[in-house]
Amino acid sequence: MSHADRRARAVNLVRGIEADGLLVTTLVNVRYLTGFTGSNGALVLPASSEPILLTDGRYRDQAAEEAPDLQVIVTRDLIAEASGLATGRWAVETHTMSVDDYKRLGLPHIVAADRLVEKLREIKDADEIAALERACEISVDSLAGLLTARFEGRTEREVARDLEHQMYERGAEAIAFDTILASGPNAAIPHHRPTNRVIERGDLVKIDFGARVDGYHADCTRTFVVGSPDEWQREVHAAVRSAQEVGVAALRAGAPVVESDRLARAVLEDAGWLEYFTTGVGHGVGLEIHEDPFIGARHAGKLAAGTTLTMEPGIYVPGRGGVRIEDTVLVGETPRVLTTMTTELLEIA
Amino acid sequence: MSHADRRARAVNLVRGIEADGLLVTTLVNVRYLTGFTGSNGALVLPASSEPILLTDGRYRDQAAEEAPDLQVIVTRDLIAEASGLATGRWAVETHTMSVDDYKRLGLPHIVAADRLVEKLREIKDADEIAALERACEISVDSLAGLLTARFEGRTEREVARDLEHQMYERGAEAIAFDTILASGPNAAIPHHRPTNRVIERGDLVKIDFGARVDGYHADCTRTFVVGSPDEWQREVHAAVRSAQEVGVAALRAGAPVVESDRLARAVLEDAGWLEYFTTGVGHGVGLEIHEDPFIGARHAGKLAAGTTLTMEPGIYVPGRGGVRIEDTVLVGETPRVLTTMTTELLEIA
Repeated sequence: MSHADRRARAVNLVRGIEADGLLVTTLVNVRYLTGFTGSNGALVLPASSEPILLTDGRYRDQAAEEAPDLQVIVTRDLIAEASGLATGRWAVETHTMSVDDYKRLGLPHIVAADRLVEKLREIKDADEIAALERACEISVDSLAGLLTARFEGRTEREVARDLEHQMYERGAEAIAFDTILASGPNAAIPHHRPTNRVIERGDLVKIDFGARVDGYHADCTRTFVVGSPDEWQREVHAAVRSAQEVGVAALRAGAPVVESDRLARAVLEDAGWLEYFTTGVGHGVGLEIHEDPFIGARHAGKLAAGTTLTMEPGIYVPGRGGVRIEDTVLVGETPRVLTTMTTELLEIA
Repeated sequence: MSHADRRARAVNLVRGIEADGLLVTTLVNVRYLTGFTGSNGALVLPASSEPILLTDGRYRDQAAEEAPDLQVIVTRDLIAEASGLATGRWAVETHTMSVDDYKRLGLPHIVAADRLVEKLREIKDADEIAALERACEISVDSLAGLLTARFEGRTEREVARDLEHQMYERGAEAIAFDTILASGPNAAIPHHRPTNRVIERGDLVKIDFGARVDGYHADCTRTFVVGSPDEWQREVHAAVRSAQEVGVAALRAGAPVVESDRLARAVLEDAGWLEYFTTGVGHGVGLEIHEDPFIGARHAGKLAAGTTLTMEPGIYVPGRGGVRIEDTVLVGETPRVLTTMTTELLEIA
């Protein structure tokens, strides 16, 4: 879908809330609606006249190149410029705009945009799905590459760097987020940062990682064991694997968002491990690593085809270790896993 | 300086604006005042009782470990929790807090914190300077390592990845920001992203890069020529080099912030190139890659010893090429360059 088509959809929603226009100041939303990827920009999107992209002098050429179909105004002060261009009743992204910018904007009639662009972004178009597929493919191929080398005796940090290097080699434009590589007792920490701990025989090794392609993020977790698993490791891994499988299967178009949460938790509860599952079940993933929708017991909506979500139950036992299994999944009549790699408890060297 | 000492200084400033406390919601400020490095947190800092760190369940263990001297409350909703804890007249970070969070906070008597913690952060203590020194050392050592290999025939992207790999190998915890590696005509783009352009003989190659250590960022730019420079390349490089040298020399404690801007620009103006200098002269650098103070013609303050700043004049001629030279500099009675490496126009292979 072209950026102009996306803007047309946004304008429809703007008219729906009876606003004269939308001021887009959330950078990732600016990118989604224009293609502009600089670190400073805003989009003035009137309901019934031409849109204008605002940025500063550093990005003059880049804006012209990335958004050739848009008028671009180069300015030192985006908020002041926007204030002069927006007349009437404007929608503003109050979920991200700072209080100070809002005051400086000083528009007389403001309506909250209420995550209007985020809602559009929930359903991915063909180009977006292609980028996500590529990011996920690079990720799992890199993990497969990593498994051919020895883990035992290397530090968490070394192995994490190795994985990141493999993603770059395979064409990642960036690492999607700080790689989590947690071994032994560290695997009990949901968001662990790799340390100089040396990986030992008998460790669970939890790796949460992803590549970024054209701005789109992959998000994948696998947990392995160095050598052979003991009974406890087998048990918690099997519980998480069942929960994850059930959760993924629930990511069908038309299903309530809460269903996958409820079903995955039920598996952990039946297995007696629910109290050690302390994070969320999953979240949207796309131009942001965490984006709408967030799966949770309070989400009232239904899943729509074309939404990409993670499914990532886990068990984290302080001092002992933990397991997480996570896929990036495309919602459809049947869910399609984009991070295609076995979720078995692989025994690594 | 301990985190408790930093909080004591912040409390002094809070009393100075006659507030009963400060709600710190800017993550980097939370880190500065507590040591907590998670991706979701807030600090409730009353003027006359004990501070409380707020975070969510993912970071329970990490918060206890990184901020052992603080009471930690684990909650799903930081803003709601903070709202219940802050009674009286509170200072809030309105420069970063979203309009929606501000409304949800719903405190009756709010005063703007006015970048209070950012001002404290301008002057670095011994631990911070040590981290910046290490980040700068890793950066310039890695660039020196890069120069031993051939540039001609490799793509911008390959050489950038090589440089980043070298920084990791030397102990960087992360890349400070997306590496800018721009060759030939691309060197005219101030914030260029590395492409698959193959570097050729005769190219200017501009590299803006840095390592991160313990959360502190290095920021350094050098521009080289592949083979021998032509007259034009010599001329623009010499102009930038003079401007940068003059600018660095003006980073003395007690000097007006505007002075370095004025002096560096004057050199470019005398050389006839000022119209091609389209970015800022420099900015503070520390826990953020861009932080207070920002050097500019409108800054009314004076430089204080212990501030770390970049000095980065450049000349960018669209379609032709460009030069930037940048150091990270510690302000003192005499300025001390932390990115110690020659600024000459090196001829590379």
